[in-house]
Amino acid sequence: MKCRKCSEVAVINMRQHKLALCADHFIEWVPAQVEKSIRKYRMFTPQDRILVAVSGGKDSLALWDILLSLGYRADGLYLGLGIDGGFGYSDESQRKCEAFVKSVESGNQAIRESGSQGIRESGNREASSSDSPISRFPDSLTPDPWLPKLHTLSIPATYGESIPEVAGRVQRGRGKPCSVCGLIKRHEMNRIAHELGYSVLATGHNLDDEAAVLFGNTMTWQVGYLARQGPVLPEGDGFARKVKPLCRLYEREMAAYCLVRGIDYIYEECPYSFGATSIAHKELLAELERKSPGARQNFYLSFLRAKENGFLNDHNQELSPLMHACERCGQPTTAPGLCAFCRLWVNVKI
Amino acid sequence: MKCRKCSEVAVINMRQHKLALCADHFIEWVPAQVEKSIRKYRMFTPQDRILVAVSGGKDSLALWDILLSLGYRADGLYLGLGIDGGFGYSDESQRKCEAFVKSVESGNQAIRESGSQGIRESGNREASSSDSPISRFPDSLTPDPWLPKLHTLSIPATYGESIPEVAGRVQRGRGKPCSVCGLIKRHEMNRIAHELGYSVLATGHNLDDEAAVLFGNTMTWQVGYLARQGPVLPEGDGFARKVKPLCRLYEREMAAYCLVRGIDYIYEECPYSFGATSIAHKELLAELERKSPGARQNFYLSFLRAKENGFLNDHNQELSPLMHACERCGQPTTAPGLCAFCRLWVNVKI
Repeated sequence: MKCRKCSEVAVINMRQHKLALCADHFIEWVPAQVEKSIRKYRMFTPQDRILVAVSGGKDSLALWDILLSLGYRADGLYLGLGIDGGFGYSDESQRKCEAFVKSVESGNQAIRESGSQGIRESGNREASSSDSPISRFPDSLTPDPWLPKLHTLSIPATYGESIPEVAGRVQRGRGKPCSVCGLIKRHEMNRIAHELGYSVLATGHNLDDEAAVLFGNTMTWQVGYLARQGPVLPEGDGFARKVKPLCRLYEREMAAYCLVRGIDYIYEECPYSFGATSIAHKELLAELERKSPGARQNFYLSFLRAKENGFLNDHNQELSPLMHACERCGQPTTAPGLCAFCRLWVNVKI
Repeated sequence: MKCRKCSEVAVINMRQHKLALCADHFIEWVPAQVEKSIRKYRMFTPQDRILVAVSGGKDSLALWDILLSLGYRADGLYLGLGIDGGFGYSDESQRKCEAFVKSVESGNQAIRESGSQGIRESGNREASSSDSPISRFPDSLTPDPWLPKLHTLSIPATYGESIPEVAGRVQRGRGKPCSVCGLIKRHEMNRIAHELGYSVLATGHNLDDEAAVLFGNTMTWQVGYLARQGPVLPEGDGFARKVKPLCRLYEREMAAYCLVRGIDYIYEECPYSFGATSIAHKELLAELERKSPGARQNFYLSFLRAKENGFLNDHNQELSPLMHACERCGQPTTAPGLCAFCRLWVNVKI
């Protein structure tokens, strides 16, 4: 199969777009698609300071790479969850993130305290821009001295317990730690973006992720969730806007992007993800996609279009319960008193 | 496994209800469920004259049987489509319907013209109620002399072409006849219910059918269809209300009901149904159901609940185009001039 644009050998065929591209045109095409999403959904502008939540996986590292290549001021945030899984999952993930940020600037790494609880940063503050391997900064004749840095935070070092430990304690050893993990990650990402003054928090959710979440909410007609689901969650009460710039790209495209760009990511999934409902939903959507290429994309994007056109009644928004500020951390919560995150730790420390 | 109600051996286990029942309690339970749906969705009352569209398959014959057993005045309508498929599909289907109505009253069959175009009826008008095998008519001490009859209409005999012939002509030999078949069936059912003065037209769509249609409309967010989908389509302009009393029962329950009640139905699917999108959607939902019993039921019923609670914006209804009366047949149509049904025949005859 040949590249649609230059007739070189194609490295990927995207059936939902009826588009095959060679390596060079593919790594041009992907950032252009992301830029389209950023503009279409008004995610952010070059003036925003963006914090990318990186896990060491393909999506989040690709997202960071793409945002940098598009000239956005995007730093990374890695949360160390203390998950081992027999192969040092968290440690290995962190190494991938650190290797990525090092690869952006070939040396000159500094690690210092950033002044926010538990946060360290590895980065390139002192680097001169001429060393940057990122070739597509805007206005390359007058390069911006800014270079990206990686913030890291260890949950065990900061809170005294790993994710599996705290989940095991509050769930009394039953079930998987995924919901506790999600809760902690959301809280810490919000807190750190807020404390470090980022206006935007970007996550690497791709179209497969978003379609699977939409599918889950649709299969049970969770009207409140449907009303909120979208590529942008507005900022509020000093907390950063949350955006998903990869929401129109398939997972396999992100894997291909990392391969072509030489981004080394962790291949292993989180050891706790096995058997998750979202994975079952992804498989069903993949089955639908095999039978009808583009079905998954159409499912997600036609939902967003229908929402834009107002198919949901406004009062669905009101199904979201009222938010208050947590008495301890100040983050928005639906619970009176302490938020769910603070309640996790209240028995251990305050 | 034992019956929940009497500890006899169960013939069916309905995992979505966590309910196993013996044969006797199962054939009590099914009509009770149907009666609940009839009341919940205000489908009809004992005063209504109901026309059941019967295909000879398990769902429609079971529906007719259930409505009779609940004491409703339900007649049948069989449309002969002229589909052979190498095994005389239409002829065999018709025989099943005729055998069913004969079994309701052991003899005394009369066939006569009913005065509406092309319609014949086989039935039990002269039968005395004491012969009726239907044991659950209300007020059995003063039995109603009414007995059900079957109207039949042959599309080839009435319009000069079978469904495959007319579809082949208008589609120039390409594609399957399913959309033309659906169009003709809907039109003829509307016409006959109207001409014979039935206030309600009932079809045997079960929960699997309805969930598959909902799934298809949801996968592409067909907002207009979502706004209209439900177990009741209101009457209008002299045309009967359309209802789906089996909308809360699974397909396998209808098969079990026929088996236990001794209703002989046609096992073969329509030869053109192979590969239909709706069947692919049914398989995906069946997969979801296997992983999570009740998922299919929850998908459909939570949609109906969300609609009742007004999650869809009212203006979605307006996405349905305006209806006019067809200049030839008077049925509602969105097209100016002739409706799609009349346009099918306009080249052949007028």
